[in-house]
Amino acid sequence: MTYDPIDYLPYDFANRRHIGPSPEEMAQMFDTLGVADLDTLIAQTVPESIRQERPLDFGKPLSEREMLHRMRKVADKNKVLVSLIGQGYHGTVTPPAIQRNILENPAWYTAYTPYQPEISQGRLEALLNFQTMVSDLTGLEIANASLLDESTACAEAMTMAQRVAKSKATAFFVDENCHPQNIAVMKTRAEPLGIEIIVGAPETLDAGAVFGAIFQYPGTYGHVRDFTAEMAALHEAKAVGIVAADPMSLCLLKEPGAMGADIAVGSTQRFGVPVGYGGPHAAYMACRDDFKRAMPGRIVGISIDSHGNKAYRLALQTREQHIRREKATSNVCTAQALLAVMAGFYAVFHGPKGLRAIAQRIHRKTARLAKGLEAAGFKVEPEAFFDTITVDVGLLQRGVLQAAVREGINLRRVGKTKVGITLDERTRPATIEAVWKAFGLLRKDDDLDADYRLPEALIRTSGYLEHEVFHMNRAETEMMRYMRRLADRDLALDRAMIPLGSCTMKLNAAAEMMPITWDEFGMLHPYAPKDQAQGYHEMITDLSEKLCEITGYDAFSMQPNSGAQGEYAGLLTIRDWQAARGEGQRNVCLIPVNAHGTNPASAHMVGWKVVAVKCDDQGSIDLDDFRAKAEKHSDTLAACMITYPSTHGVFEETVKEVCAITHEHGGQVYIDGANMNAMVGLSRPGDLGGDVSHLNLHKTFCIPHGGGGPGMGPIGVKAHLAPHLPGDPNGGKAPVSAAAFGSPSLLPISWAYVLMMGGEGLTQATRVAILNANYIAKRLEGAYDVLYRGGEGRVAHECILDTRPFEKTAGVTVEDIAKRLIDCGFHAPTMSWPVAGTLMVEPTESETKAELDRFCDAMLAIREDIRAIENGDMDREVNPLKMAPHTMEDLVKDWDRPYTREQGCFPPGAFRVDKYWPPVNRVDNVFGDRNLICTCPPIEDIAEAAE
Amino acid sequence: MTYDPIDYLPYDFANRRHIGPSPEEMAQMFDTLGVADLDTLIAQTVPESIRQERPLDFGKPLSEREMLHRMRKVADKNKVLVSLIGQGYHGTVTPPAIQRNILENPAWYTAYTPYQPEISQGRLEALLNFQTMVSDLTGLEIANASLLDESTACAEAMTMAQRVAKSKATAFFVDENCHPQNIAVMKTRAEPLGIEIIVGAPETLDAGAVFGAIFQYPGTYGHVRDFTAEMAALHEAKAVGIVAADPMSLCLLKEPGAMGADIAVGSTQRFGVPVGYGGPHAAYMACRDDFKRAMPGRIVGISIDSHGNKAYRLALQTREQHIRREKATSNVCTAQALLAVMAGFYAVFHGPKGLRAIAQRIHRKTARLAKGLEAAGFKVEPEAFFDTITVDVGLLQRGVLQAAVREGINLRRVGKTKVGITLDERTRPATIEAVWKAFGLLRKDDDLDADYRLPEALIRTSGYLEHEVFHMNRAETEMMRYMRRLADRDLALDRAMIPLGSCTMKLNAAAEMMPITWDEFGMLHPYAPKDQAQGYHEMITDLSEKLCEITGYDAFSMQPNSGAQGEYAGLLTIRDWQAARGEGQRNVCLIPVNAHGTNPASAHMVGWKVVAVKCDDQGSIDLDDFRAKAEKHSDTLAACMITYPSTHGVFEETVKEVCAITHEHGGQVYIDGANMNAMVGLSRPGDLGGDVSHLNLHKTFCIPHGGGGPGMGPIGVKAHLAPHLPGDPNGGKAPVSAAAFGSPSLLPISWAYVLMMGGEGLTQATRVAILNANYIAKRLEGAYDVLYRGGEGRVAHECILDTRPFEKTAGVTVEDIAKRLIDCGFHAPTMSWPVAGTLMVEPTESETKAELDRFCDAMLAIREDIRAIENGDMDREVNPLKMAPHTMEDLVKDWDRPYTREQGCFPPGAFRVDKYWPPVNRVDNVFGDRNLICTCPPIEDIAEAAE
Repeated sequence: MTYDPIDYLPYDFANRRHIGPSPEEMAQMFDTLGVADLDTLIAQTVPESIRQERPLDFGKPLSEREMLHRMRKVADKNKVLVSLIGQGYHGTVTPPAIQRNILENPAWYTAYTPYQPEISQGRLEALLNFQTMVSDLTGLEIANASLLDESTACAEAMTMAQRVAKSKATAFFVDENCHPQNIAVMKTRAEPLGIEIIVGAPETLDAGAVFGAIFQYPGTYGHVRDFTAEMAALHEAKAVGIVAADPMSLCLLKEPGAMGADIAVGSTQRFGVPVGYGGPHAAYMACRDDFKRAMPGRIVGISIDSHGNKAYRLALQTREQHIRREKATSNVCTAQALLAVMAGFYAVFHGPKGLRAIAQRIHRKTARLAKGLEAAGFKVEPEAFFDTITVDVGLLQRGVLQAAVREGINLRRVGKTKVGITLDERTRPATIEAVWKAFGLLRKDDDLDADYRLPEALIRTSGYLEHEVFHMNRAETEMMRYMRRLADRDLALDRAMIPLGSCTMKLNAAAEMMPITWDEFGMLHPYAPKDQAQGYHEMITDLSEKLCEITGYDAFSMQPNSGAQGEYAGLLTIRDWQAARGEGQRNVCLIPVNAHGTNPASAHMVGWKVVAVKCDDQGSIDLDDFRAKAEKHSDTLAACMITYPSTHGVFEETVKEVCAITHEHGGQVYIDGANMNAMVGLSRPGDLGGDVSHLNLHKTFCIPHGGGGPGMGPIGVKAHLAPHLPGDPNGGKAPVSAAAFGSPSLLPISWAYVLMMGGEGLTQATRVAILNANYIAKRLEGAYDVLYRGGEGRVAHECILDTRPFEKTAGVTVEDIAKRLIDCGFHAPTMSWPVAGTLMVEPTESETKAELDRFCDAMLAIREDIRAIENGDMDREVNPLKMAPHTMEDLVKDWDRPYTREQGCFPPGAFRVDKYWPPVNRVDNVFGDRNLICTCPPIEDIAEAAE
Repeated sequence: MTYDPIDYLPYDFANRRHIGPSPEEMAQMFDTLGVADLDTLIAQTVPESIRQERPLDFGKPLSEREMLHRMRKVADKNKVLVSLIGQGYHGTVTPPAIQRNILENPAWYTAYTPYQPEISQGRLEALLNFQTMVSDLTGLEIANASLLDESTACAEAMTMAQRVAKSKATAFFVDENCHPQNIAVMKTRAEPLGIEIIVGAPETLDAGAVFGAIFQYPGTYGHVRDFTAEMAALHEAKAVGIVAADPMSLCLLKEPGAMGADIAVGSTQRFGVPVGYGGPHAAYMACRDDFKRAMPGRIVGISIDSHGNKAYRLALQTREQHIRREKATSNVCTAQALLAVMAGFYAVFHGPKGLRAIAQRIHRKTARLAKGLEAAGFKVEPEAFFDTITVDVGLLQRGVLQAAVREGINLRRVGKTKVGITLDERTRPATIEAVWKAFGLLRKDDDLDADYRLPEALIRTSGYLEHEVFHMNRAETEMMRYMRRLADRDLALDRAMIPLGSCTMKLNAAAEMMPITWDEFGMLHPYAPKDQAQGYHEMITDLSEKLCEITGYDAFSMQPNSGAQGEYAGLLTIRDWQAARGEGQRNVCLIPVNAHGTNPASAHMVGWKVVAVKCDDQGSIDLDDFRAKAEKHSDTLAACMITYPSTHGVFEETVKEVCAITHEHGGQVYIDGANMNAMVGLSRPGDLGGDVSHLNLHKTFCIPHGGGGPGMGPIGVKAHLAPHLPGDPNGGKAPVSAAAFGSPSLLPISWAYVLMMGGEGLTQATRVAILNANYIAKRLEGAYDVLYRGGEGRVAHECILDTRPFEKTAGVTVEDIAKRLIDCGFHAPTMSWPVAGTLMVEPTESETKAELDRFCDAMLAIREDIRAIENGDMDREVNPLKMAPHTMEDLVKDWDRPYTREQGCFPPGAFRVDKYWPPVNRVDNVFGDRNLICTCPPIEDIAEAAE
């Protein structure tokens, strides 16, 4: 029998698994669009002038199994030692039920940021638990729903202090006992803002000379000091006091609030989130109630829905989602939601008793360790400590560190003669004995009666975690069901398309997610010796090379752990390069008016002046205005920041000219990579004239959104800028994050994606993303105006639907449509951005035609309802749009509406048996902001407030 | 500061995670029960006379982390080679999305057998997909929803053939090309039933001399033969033809149905289920339509619900759930549901094109391998093959096998001079080259144009998997959502208590589940050299020792892969021992009338006569009757089979006397371990007088029920029986399953449980299981009569609620109550067993008081509704009980019932926001059995049938 050719490739990840539409579906879509094939559509969409010269080629793409095999080999090159380095990163025990039911569960990790509260009640509750935990442990009234890492949280606290302090001083005091990476990142942040950083011992604080001060608690070398006096002095001087505190230590130690601190920050990593060679994990920030409106980041608050029932939502959103272009001093617009959820659940799992017991165990082990060393004559500092001690070993330092490594343990090198040791939840008696052995001591860890070594005056006397959620039954059965209930309240990618313009909610494949929970990626300390992280470095090198090839840049830094952080790092890089060549005067940044809000905010953060550039009525940069402004500021032009394709979803043909003009006037070009999913394989920002771009790995490269983080915003630069990229946070120059590679334990996801897609698959993904967007635009034609098309009437990978007219014709707002989509089983597209009153739809390449059709059917039916209102066939006030979303409770109650239950609850698009029911009706944001409650409250409080 | 004792142990798995009620809750429960403490309750419940002498002591229990550490060390002792041994076990690629979203997802693995169809529509659909796949691939009309393994499926097919054949012959022909383990298990099964097994080459078949015949396809040595002529001859002789077929081969080869086969069996392991050192995986059975009522195992069928909508449910249940005591020739009452679901999804993931491509690849690789060997002069058999070849290497056998192991490959030893090689989905060119190397050939696998080596006449010409589910869009996004939708339709332990009497639905902890997906457990071939499985053996040895300690037995066999299989194996063991001592005449088995239906079925399977023993009105064995029957059959008494505590949930004080009487008359005592969860740590069957017991590891020892399997039924025996335990299926004597240790990849779950609980924790679990049952009995007192209490008015770990009176007083049946519990968010307790018209409730130790209360509230409210009917306050026909369960559709429709929507849908117990909605109304079983449809049909068919 002759050879029967196999035309079907079952392991082709790109075309079998990642890309949504099947070949048959695509053919139907071409028909709808009136094009012969995908090439034709792309030719109509992406101008020839900006296309890249040669196709992406990464060799043969790997199957899922091959990728996992490769990943395993690379993982095995990471050596997992026990790291007692401390410095803000600690061993922790992730409860398996949390790992399985949260971290490895698509219902949690594929969720989007909870901007649509009605479909986010589950994770909002989980984040409220996190906030309550932080607020309780720190003794401060308000906590946010996490920041990126402790170091950036310190920097945020510093700039927040400047905003709220009545003191007019321009200096900021930093406790020399702060972790080095915290000091480094604050310095980076301070310099462009003109803040003078004074590093010194706490007792040297001159409160009158500063607008604020930060202290580490416990200090990086283990000291546990009371900062009550410092706080009083700062308040006296109308300055702001900040404590960076380890939340585990706060289970035993006096809380910052009780010392009078105004702000507390820190990392919740050791609450069940693996170290991951640096991240991701959730930093926290808490503050006094009267500073709450100045606090960066997201805050979950409690409000009521349209029926007066309790409902969670993000509070004070204007502070955050819509970064103020002009006055921003923070560009924070992401969080570490998934990790904050984990940390919050860790607290729920253990409750106050459990946390206290864990903290006690850690402390007692440290006391035993110290006692053993002291008994042998070693000098242990400090006398009182929580989990960290420093031992002066003189000339033996190198020997002790090496001996420890031979025992499988990393200790911290402190100065030239000292060794630091920080114990944690994972420390076992054998570990303590191994440390002693590294010090030359043969000793058994059997004296379990070690005294406490906490300072008597700093023993915590107040309670914490008193809310009932931290006292629920902690049997795993109950915990599992609680996690499931919360997950079920939310609508994530595992149930429906999330067509969020600019957010690229694509498939996060199971295979991509698997390696991130391997110990070889999870258990590495960011400051472990580099030779223990060879796997990480191999992966990062390969991924960087591939990203260079994709973008046309020459070097990548993985340090920024969010997109906005990437922008900031990119601008710093430009700024440093310019300063190095004697052009430090350049401080004007041209930014089109329709830019992402983070762009001007980032520019402000590096001390630049933002000059806005007009856009034409197609949303494209007004070239004349751009040229005029560039000329006007020619001497001081630092950079321009543009997004490509534009935030309006158009491939502007003028992009190269914009870059040329900028260069001509001595500026550098920052191309925002938010829309990179429309470019990969087709066009390279580096070729267009970009000098720097950030990539959102959590958009284009498959890192899941995690309900609002983690993210990754690495930056690519041209060769001349490479030496000016952010340095190592642990000793290098001008770092922007606490860890050299940001959140490296996420990188296996993006690497796996690139390995399995190959160059051709990545390009095809881009093409199909464009196909899907154009298909939606086409199907909705006639019902909705699609704003901003390119030359041939096509959109790029997203499209903007104009819903503004309906407010006049039918009293229907964009919000009404968004909420009505919940009834149809969808997360709304991006609302009112970049154009107020519109919806921006980005389906991504991962959605099938069937799902696109379900969405279009829903949108078309909504349009019909609007028409019925316009015609007077439907009531203007009581109609399915205004009453949306509908809950199960609506069905049970008496029904006196001028439309049927069926119409209310099962509009086109909605599943029947598999219907998603929002747990609340429409949430009242105004009420919530007026009655701000951001920790778990007794339920009566809400009810009362509502009356 | 002085030492502050830590009284809270955060890592105490038993008391923190596994056991439901908190100490505070327990105190409240003692109050309700009017006892001072748990000791008092246990003293009232478990008679002193049967208590074990010394407490269980397994040393310090491990924390979750310690257990995982230990498990990892043990796993590392298993060496994962590439096994090309074949013989029914194959390398396979589990799609990561299936692993994550099914195998590692509690929504799937904690579900119970779908006896309550309204809450099981998701997995019923998944199993129907499996049946459709099997039916299509085999070309036979009806398939069941899986059997335990291929060998037992062969044995089941043999006995089924005997049932349906019109031939009166008593011999059964077995193709000598059947896998050795299949032949061995069929021989075991045949002997007690008086079936003569004739093993021979297909061409030696004398159809007139047999009632049936079985052929392996492809044969164990690789031959691919057409059995059409044999089938015709068998039919001529009114005998039954069976083909044991590899489903992967059927993607390319002529299907058994087309050859005229009446029955096909086989294993679906290679459809995405890791080998796991032998199991679990799903065997299949398919047959001609006219044999369907004789087919063992579960069959999913399609029916309609009370509104006429399509609904899945188990068809012909009387065949299966209620094993017929007297005439049973099969005791099958479990399946491999979770694995069948995986295999079905594997087919959905790949579709017919994908499966065909995978089969083609496997075949082509085999052809290339053969060509290379032939080119070097090796004699390869057979000429035509699918994936298996046999090479005669003469004296080199040992050398080749060893060389292969050095290359990391296991080949099969065939006879004294041959080597067998079976390729699979995982075989890579490098593997082929390594095999060649083991044969001394240095050769590159680069000739990709190898001819097909399938027999031309056996090329499959018919289509398969033509139903739309196998043609859905296969993008992972769509697949993930399909899996989620199905999961959401079902109610499993991750959402609510499943208080199933006798089924012990306890926590399956996440930590226990983690190791089972490690390659070191998943990737071992059951017939791999023992030195590669040292980790398995260490685990099995330790677990066996602990089970001996728990049960009071001296040896354990892990071979039985279900509880019923355990019974059967235990009786065989007794029988073999008696035969060995010249008492082969013993063939009477005393079984109380209230025994599990499997007991008499198992006794029949070993050729024994069942003599029923009366029970008193407390459900306890009538001792006089027992004594009388034992005396009467003294010469032929083989054994008694009793359950302890009794199936009525009572600790009978007479148990030791029953055992003594049996022994006195020369019989052996089989104590059914189904209720072992009421005994662990308190009482040992071995001490009571038992000679053999099986344990249901999927009940007492935390293996999840997986929606109806896998299970594990290892047997413990006293020392005298140990030499008579089942032998190794691959060469040993009288095996009962295909693999020596049954389903060993499940054993990490039970081992983890025992390691983390420790002796004290296990005992406490038993005590709390008893507490929980008594708490429910107490709370429901007055509303429901609790049947069968022990001496002091207590129940054991379960209680029977008498719902019989309500049929007369209110027309309410036990089914009405069961269905109404769905509205309350519960899976019903066991219905009508052991007493018709009652509910048997077993809460297990893992449920919290809050959940028990929710259940009791629901039951009490149901009782109030019944009272309202009794009083005439509620209609007898149209009331919430009769109309239960209520669906969302009921809410949407017009409501003309004499009770409110609120009353219908939100009875006490039901969650509101987190309400579980059944996807269908009450399912009509009679309709379904009259119109049996057991494969995915076009929807119109159902609609028509309903009219």
